[in-house]
Amino acid sequence: MSKLLQDVVGELSRLPGVGSRTALRLAMHLLRMEPEAVGEMTRSIDRFRRDVKYCSQCNNLSDDPLCPICADRERDHGTVCVVEQVADVLSIENTRQYRGLYHVLGGVISPMQGIAPSDLKIDLLCERLDRGGIREVILAISTSVEGETTLFYLMNRLRQYPGVKITSIARGIGFGDELEYVDALTITHALINRREME
Amino acid sequence: MSKLLQDVVGELSRLPGVGSRTALRLAMHLLRMEPEAVGEMTRSIDRFRRDVKYCSQCNNLSDDPLCPICADRERDHGTVCVVEQVADVLSIENTRQYRGLYHVLGGVISPMQGIAPSDLKIDLLCERLDRGGIREVILAISTSVEGETTLFYLMNRLRQYPGVKITSIARGIGFGDELEYVDALTITHALINRREME
Repeated sequence: MSKLLQDVVGELSRLPGVGSRTALRLAMHLLRMEPEAVGEMTRSIDRFRRDVKYCSQCNNLSDDPLCPICADRERDHGTVCVVEQVADVLSIENTRQYRGLYHVLGGVISPMQGIAPSDLKIDLLCERLDRGGIREVILAISTSVEGETTLFYLMNRLRQYPGVKITSIARGIGFGDELEYVDALTITHALINRREME
Repeated sequence: MSKLLQDVVGELSRLPGVGSRTALRLAMHLLRMEPEAVGEMTRSIDRFRRDVKYCSQCNNLSDDPLCPICADRERDHGTVCVVEQVADVLSIENTRQYRGLYHVLGGVISPMQGIAPSDLKIDLLCERLDRGGIREVILAISTSVEGETTLFYLMNRLRQYPGVKITSIARGIGFGDELEYVDALTITHALINRREME
């Protein structure tokens, strides 16, 4: 087998859900694409990985220091929805039902994977609350074991802000489901039926 | 949504079997990869697309002017197996049952997709036969409508070489199946039971 082909199949196989057979099929597709189109694709991947920036306030992906959501004066800056990852922001935005801001933790606490609370953007969330002006924090964390651990850890940390209402999205979402893959209607209902935490 | 993210999702969605949701998942995976690993991947894609070469004899992918199969003196240079695409060579090689050479057409005749016989490496095959030394040509073309068209076209062209035996791999492969996805055992039997064409 051509060394170049072997290399590209090996590299593509690193992607999630891509086995060596799919990688080979992708490589054959690359051959049928114009070289310029392939160049555009790889440049956009490189640019994304190298130049990607995070919002200094909410840790969402952003091309500017402040993401378009945090910079939007029309949105409710008194409500912050805490999510695990960037994809969750997109899922909630797709419902067009939520007008508050976000806070992207960047993962969940997972002793198995060596992810400690300090690896997540929890201090950044507390700094936002310290600055005041936030009335409600909605916790939209998935219902996995790691998600529950993170939820309880957050509740403990957020107790130091008695003036802030802490809510959690309703349990309309099945256990083990990942927010990223849930349909917009279920997410809408889970947002509407959010309950106050004791 | 970040422009950089939007770009990379758009570019990845061009790949076969990759929708916008999968593209987003791939993009999120890229963020978790080391920037150097992403750079290695994109460089291998660029190198593959830009530097890929084809064997001057059989049109298989090759880093050298002559591919390792054509250059192998141990193989039977009197037998040539004609296939549609590079992936088919890999499928047949995986059976470890075939010791002859290959000829990669680079597709099948498809009026629908505007692929004419002149777009395929059929002249290159005839040149090989003109040079002599080939006793048998095995046609291993898939059983689609386009494959059948190509098969009949090839049979007509190859009639000018009465000293060359023309065979076709046995119909052990279901109609509409693509050779690329057939298991090694079926391909082995199809090769063994190849029949001489009238």
